[in-house]
Amino acid sequence: MADTDDVFTEALQLTGTDSPHRVTGHTHPAWANMVGPFGGITAAVLLRAIEQHPDRLGDPLALTVNYLAPIADGPYQLSLNPVRTNRTNQHWIVELSQDGEPKTTATAIFGSHRDTWGDTEAGPPPAPAPETVQPRGTGFPTWLSRYDMRMVAGELPEVEGQQAASSTSTLWVRDAAGRALDYAGLAALSDIFYPRIYLRTGRLIPAGTITLTTYFHAGGAELAAVGGDFLLATAAARRFSRGFFDQTATLWSRDGVLLATSDQLVYFKG
Amino acid sequence: MADTDDVFTEALQLTGTDSPHRVTGHTHPAWANMVGPFGGITAAVLLRAIEQHPDRLGDPLALTVNYLAPIADGPYQLSLNPVRTNRTNQHWIVELSQDGEPKTTATAIFGSHRDTWGDTEAGPPPAPAPETVQPRGTGFPTWLSRYDMRMVAGELPEVEGQQAASSTSTLWVRDAAGRALDYAGLAALSDIFYPRIYLRTGRLIPAGTITLTTYFHAGGAELAAVGGDFLLATAAARRFSRGFFDQTATLWSRDGVLLATSDQLVYFKG
Repeated sequence: MADTDDVFTEALQLTGTDSPHRVTGHTHPAWANMVGPFGGITAAVLLRAIEQHPDRLGDPLALTVNYLAPIADGPYQLSLNPVRTNRTNQHWIVELSQDGEPKTTATAIFGSHRDTWGDTEAGPPPAPAPETVQPRGTGFPTWLSRYDMRMVAGELPEVEGQQAASSTSTLWVRDAAGRALDYAGLAALSDIFYPRIYLRTGRLIPAGTITLTTYFHAGGAELAAVGGDFLLATAAARRFSRGFFDQTATLWSRDGVLLATSDQLVYFKG
Repeated sequence: MADTDDVFTEALQLTGTDSPHRVTGHTHPAWANMVGPFGGITAAVLLRAIEQHPDRLGDPLALTVNYLAPIADGPYQLSLNPVRTNRTNQHWIVELSQDGEPKTTATAIFGSHRDTWGDTEAGPPPAPAPETVQPRGTGFPTWLSRYDMRMVAGELPEVEGQQAASSTSTLWVRDAAGRALDYAGLAALSDIFYPRIYLRTGRLIPAGTITLTTYFHAGGAELAAVGGDFLLATAAARRFSRGFFDQTATLWSRDGVLLATSDQLVYFKG
């Protein structure tokens, strides 16, 4: 473990107000991205805010985060709206703002799980054991150092203009401080991938996620079984067009449990 | 053309109020599903409401629709909130309610397109020409008759308990009245598939979409080129667990343009 400080949990610290529907938080320097914080930590903060709400029902099922504008270093305010609570599920709208200016919105669905027929139809990508793969170098942006990342396929191009035929990247990833996986951790990991456009064009074109949707397939026991171990994460784009591309991702436990599926739409400069 | 009435456009009729942020609509009997209207027509209505808003910027990029509760036959109210307008994109929150009770929420991102590098990395599924495939029988629920559907793979099980190894369905589909494709039409088509659980279990288990996210990859000229022609639509689930499954879908023009990618999370009774 390179780091024993649980800066993930620190970044998710929220302070209550006189209303359960309003809490405040603060950006954490350990999670800085090129502009504002890593999108994954923002997703995790929004999810955690709901998890801590006194009226919360069940576990996260789905989370859509819309990135409206960069979050400035400093405090932020969250407003939580439990729009509807049904017998087995609950729908939320959350907004993150700074000085009254909306920066991020999200909708989330929480709910109760039941024992039902189940099957995982997709399969994980091929990958050697994480222990046999070199850790990715850390550095800039800052948040990359928060994870122990072992690239299996689709590494960042090493030479400017080196174009890959496929936009697929696959990596083993775990919290660098050994923090055990939970839903907030999984929400953050669903945004772990660098922009697919880098891979296809071989250029570090300015790009940013504009919306991210994650479905949480894992039950609490499946998350607990992962603990601080590596996940296998894979992502690919299906179409790049007119300044945008999609990214579809799956996140797997080492023993092949599909923990989450996640999609995002990404803006890029042409 | 089986039908010359454009009941799609009829279902999207909205009436203004004294505020541009509030409009009213009414369910259309032609789009009735088993309980409430077809989820796709609801998605289309929410998108159309934004398209008609005087402050709307650009074209739809992404739409997430959350189905909170069944919509009753009758009138409904839409509240439209343009949360943030940037230089090239705009973020919306929309809520559909009946008698003050929230039934559907959505977030949408609209934006301007630019000429950029582009590529479609995914490919359409194999399919014979739609003219060589038998139209699907129509009937119950009512909205199925609104589409000319030609199943290529993954048809509804014909025998109770007949389990398919794959949850993939592929079909050609077009508006039965010959209506030309637009973004609202594409939003509706992203919900064209019957629940994947039917295919895997061979049983018509009660199931319903709880959240649907669609990314619109097509530009206006690509949509116009489709006109009233068939789209090729394919969908599959990746995991069924604890009362929920995901569905990931792609929608293609006849000549292989990836028009939209779409994901949803579906509730099912165990």
